[in-house]
Amino acid sequence: MPLHNRRTFINAALKAAGASALSLSAMQLTFAANHLKKTYTVDDVIQLILKEIPGAPFKQTVDTIKSGSGSQQVTGIVTTMFATVPVIKQAASLNANFIIAHEPTFYNHTDDTNWVQPNEVLQQKLALLKEHNMAVWRFHDYWHSHRPDGIFFGVIKQAGWEKYYKEGERMLKIPSVSLKEIITQLKQKLGISTLRFIGDINQSCENIGLMPGAAGGQAQVSFIEKYKPDVLIVGEVHEWETAEYVRDARAQGAKTALIVLGHSVSEEPGMEWLVEWLQPKLQGIKVTHIASGNPFTWM
Amino acid sequence: MPLHNRRTFINAALKAAGASALSLSAMQLTFAANHLKKTYTVDDVIQLILKEIPGAPFKQTVDTIKSGSGSQQVTGIVTTMFATVPVIKQAASLNANFIIAHEPTFYNHTDDTNWVQPNEVLQQKLALLKEHNMAVWRFHDYWHSHRPDGIFFGVIKQAGWEKYYKEGERMLKIPSVSLKEIITQLKQKLGISTLRFIGDINQSCENIGLMPGAAGGQAQVSFIEKYKPDVLIVGEVHEWETAEYVRDARAQGAKTALIVLGHSVSEEPGMEWLVEWLQPKLQGIKVTHIASGNPFTWM
Repeated sequence: MPLHNRRTFINAALKAAGASALSLSAMQLTFAANHLKKTYTVDDVIQLILKEIPGAPFKQTVDTIKSGSGSQQVTGIVTTMFATVPVIKQAASLNANFIIAHEPTFYNHTDDTNWVQPNEVLQQKLALLKEHNMAVWRFHDYWHSHRPDGIFFGVIKQAGWEKYYKEGERMLKIPSVSLKEIITQLKQKLGISTLRFIGDINQSCENIGLMPGAAGGQAQVSFIEKYKPDVLIVGEVHEWETAEYVRDARAQGAKTALIVLGHSVSEEPGMEWLVEWLQPKLQGIKVTHIASGNPFTWM
Repeated sequence: MPLHNRRTFINAALKAAGASALSLSAMQLTFAANHLKKTYTVDDVIQLILKEIPGAPFKQTVDTIKSGSGSQQVTGIVTTMFATVPVIKQAASLNANFIIAHEPTFYNHTDDTNWVQPNEVLQQKLALLKEHNMAVWRFHDYWHSHRPDGIFFGVIKQAGWEKYYKEGERMLKIPSVSLKEIITQLKQKLGISTLRFIGDINQSCENIGLMPGAAGGQAQVSFIEKYKPDVLIVGEVHEWETAEYVRDARAQGAKTALIVLGHSVSEEPGMEWLVEWLQPKLQGIKVTHIASGNPFTWM
């Protein structure tokens, strides 16, 4: 029910109860509206989120509805990195019909459904989404634009580095530990089985650069040039860009090491933190995090 | 010495020896030129290679000289995937002053030296190249355009799959083996310590798709859609593209597994095969392969 319809309904209800709607303040009305509210559409949830994002709505963004309708009534919300086939099925089993995913649903950044032909996998996925009447909204650009960056803050929290975080900064100064200790800690806290790194496991690290996800070589290399971290922690790299740059820098005597966590696991804590952030804003709707998890096995 | 100068020299030498240059056929002249030839410039070597590439020279290509001069006399040639700092130093120690590299030298596809600022690592690398008077030429687009694709054929050969190769095809039909056996064989033959995969290690594989390097998600996913291989073997992926597509496809019941070898190690055999291909075309110049190797450690 749109807001103006809900107000009309409340006014009518209050009138029927003998009260004068005109004597109620706007604050009281809002309180009454929230209190009575039991249902949200997908659009209601999105609008409620965007109110918290500086500069929203954006003219250009990949954060669009990928499946389902903005007008459908939400039965439950699942947050995740990727709305994979298993995540869709688990969401449905929880009676949720709205997935908020950080990354693409259709295997390319803009979720272009004509990206490849005939894309039978995509057709089957669309059918699965339809079968479960599942709405999917991408929450990427907006979540990164939240202050603090929702993904970054979730990762900091999960890694146990919240006390070293300075608002808006991607560099953290932590008590000096070895690269090996940082890797061990990140694997344990973020639930990572295996990761890749470039560096000396015995080197000391206290100036940590953190860029979860796949920011791209230009952003990652520019960051190293600017901040000269002891280690840069990222989700994913282009090997011919950041990895080769770090390899050369170290061969020249630079200290900067590189840890590549894996894309999905590197940002998942931000979608877990979203539950904590979003749940108090909604009444009667359960918000659940399902980790889409790392897709790889190592051998 | 440019070709016309060499011809003049040969003619003069033959005249001095009492022979009539005019009575010699073009074929005899070419033979005499090749026989007498002891020196090559970088441009000579490039031209000699391009004669073997269909459609060369290309109007648009990243295969340009990245360091040194086309007119410098070649003392020795090194082939590699990446002209890393250690590869440059090893080449110099072999008295080679010309590196033929498959991938970028300056950490981005077009080798734009202004890609990031101030790029101190790049400045130091340029100084090292200058110190050793080292020419670097990228041999990417042309080597892939050779028939057979030089990289692809080198990998096939190294993997022991030459007998299953059909000219121009990227699918191979091999006797059925488990995914585990393929991974074990590739690790051993290509000298890979650890790799990532998606799939069931016990599944049988006989239809193999092979795309060394980083062809990009659109090419990789289109390939799977078209050929439905039992396993696709690649060098590098965008995790949000090919990896997520394969994960969903498998969750839907498809068989296609994915092996991600690592970019550098996936194409290195093609730069090793280049030695075998190029050496017989040159007299008095040593061609050596130096593997730039995998940059990562796993933990």
